[in-house]
Amino acid sequence: MPNPTAAMLVIGDEILSGRTRDANMYYLAGELTKIGIDLLEVRVVSDDAPAIIAATKALSDGFDHVFTSGGIGPTHDDITADCIAAAFDRPIDVRADARKLLADLYAETGRELNDARLRMARIPDGAVLIDNPVSVAPGFSIENVHVMAGVPAVFQAMVATVLPQLTGGQPLLSQSIRLMQGEGDIATPLAELAKANPALSIGSYPFQKDGIFGANIVIRGTDGAQVDAAIVKLVKMFPQ
Amino acid sequence: MPNPTAAMLVIGDEILSGRTRDANMYYLAGELTKIGIDLLEVRVVSDDAPAIIAATKALSDGFDHVFTSGGIGPTHDDITADCIAAAFDRPIDVRADARKLLADLYAETGRELNDARLRMARIPDGAVLIDNPVSVAPGFSIENVHVMAGVPAVFQAMVATVLPQLTGGQPLLSQSIRLMQGEGDIATPLAELAKANPALSIGSYPFQKDGIFGANIVIRGTDGAQVDAAIVKLVKMFPQ
Repeated sequence: MPNPTAAMLVIGDEILSGRTRDANMYYLAGELTKIGIDLLEVRVVSDDAPAIIAATKALSDGFDHVFTSGGIGPTHDDITADCIAAAFDRPIDVRADARKLLADLYAETGRELNDARLRMARIPDGAVLIDNPVSVAPGFSIENVHVMAGVPAVFQAMVATVLPQLTGGQPLLSQSIRLMQGEGDIATPLAELAKANPALSIGSYPFQKDGIFGANIVIRGTDGAQVDAAIVKLVKMFPQ
Repeated sequence: MPNPTAAMLVIGDEILSGRTRDANMYYLAGELTKIGIDLLEVRVVSDDAPAIIAATKALSDGFDHVFTSGGIGPTHDDITADCIAAAFDRPIDVRADARKLLADLYAETGRELNDARLRMARIPDGAVLIDNPVSVAPGFSIENVHVMAGVPAVFQAMVATVLPQLTGGQPLLSQSIRLMQGEGDIATPLAELAKANPALSIGSYPFQKDGIFGANIVIRGTDGAQVDAAIVKLVKMFPQ
C-alpha cells in the first residue's frame, strides 16, 4: 500500500520578503519522513486571504494531510483561522473550550483576556483543538487540515501532538555516499542502477568545494536490505 | 504603479524529505525585495514530471516572473528542462550554442563530453540561455520563467545574471523593533497603526525566550519617511 501523502502550507510575509529563513518546513519534512507520510508539496503564501483560501482548498483536495504554519496569533495580520473557515465554508467564532484555555492561563498569570487575545479562541465549527503546551493558545484540525502556529517552538510542539494520531506508512530509509567525481562522470551508471531498482529513489546532489566537483548520492527506500545492496553496488562502481 | 510580482518553484525531493534545508528561497526572497519585485508565492515540488509541469503552468499564468531552482544537471533525476518544455508545449533537444559552451569547457579540462553531460545542453526551442560563471552548464529563460540550478553557488550566480535584466519596482524598505511584551498586549494599538497607514505592511512576529514572550514588529513600505514615522509612533506607544 502506498504511503499517505501530505502537503504543507506556510503562511507569512516574513518568509517571502527574505526576512526570516524558514525552519518549520525543514522540521516537518524530517518528522513526516520518519513515520512514512510522504511530503509531496510545500506552498508558501503571503498574509493574503484569497491566496490562503485558494491554497488550502487545492492542497486539501490533492493530498491526504495538510499542515499549515503561521498566522494564528492575536494581531491584525493573523488571519489564518478565518481563512481556513472560509475555505471549508464553516462559521467561525470564539469557542467556549478554546476561550476557557486562555481564560485559565490569563487568570493564573494576572494578564487581561482582552479582545486581541480572544482572537486566538476563534475556531471554525467542527474543528478539533490541537494542544499547545508552550503558550496555550491552541491550533486546530478540520477535515484533513492541521492548523498550527508559526513560532518554531510552538509549531514543533503541535506537530508532536498531531503526528501520533495519524496513520503513517513505511518510514523512508536512506543512505548516502559522497563521490568526488563530477555528476557527468557518474550519471550513466547511476541511471542504470536507478533503472534496475525501480522501488528505490536515487538522487544525486552535486556540490563544488574549492573548485572540485562532487556529488552526494542519496538512496531512499522502505526496504533497508534493498537500500543497503544498492549502496554496496555504488561503492563498487566508484571506489574512492 | 504596483511592483511586478514573482513566484518561485523549487524542484527537488531533497527538500521535501528533510535531507536538505532550503537556501535558495531565502536568497532569492532577499534579492527580489531589494529591487522591488514582490515574491508572492513559493512552491516546492518533488522530482515528478506532472507536478513540475502543473506548477510551472500555474505560476507562469499567475505572476509576472517565475524563478525555478533545481533539476538541470546531467543525472537521471534531472528532468526540469524537459518539464518546462512540456509546460510551454515547445520541442526540446541539444542546442548548438549550449553544446558549444560545454564542448569548450570539456576540451579545456580534458574531460569527455559524454551523453550524460550533453543532457545539460537540452534547451527548449526559443529559450534564452542564462550564463553560468561557476560551472558553465547554462540555465535558460523561456517566456516569463527563469530556469536555474539548485546548487546554491550556481543559483546565486544565475540570479545575479537574470535580475539586472528585469524591470524592478520600488524596493521595499523595512525597519523593525523588538518589543518585550506579549502580542496580546500590543495587538490593538498595532492594528490601529496598521489601519492608519494602509500603504505600510506591519507584521508582528512573536517569539519566546527563557519563558518571556515578545514580538518583533516589522514595518515595510516603499516610502522611507512613512516607515520612519510609523516606527517613531510605535516607540512612543511602547517605551521599552
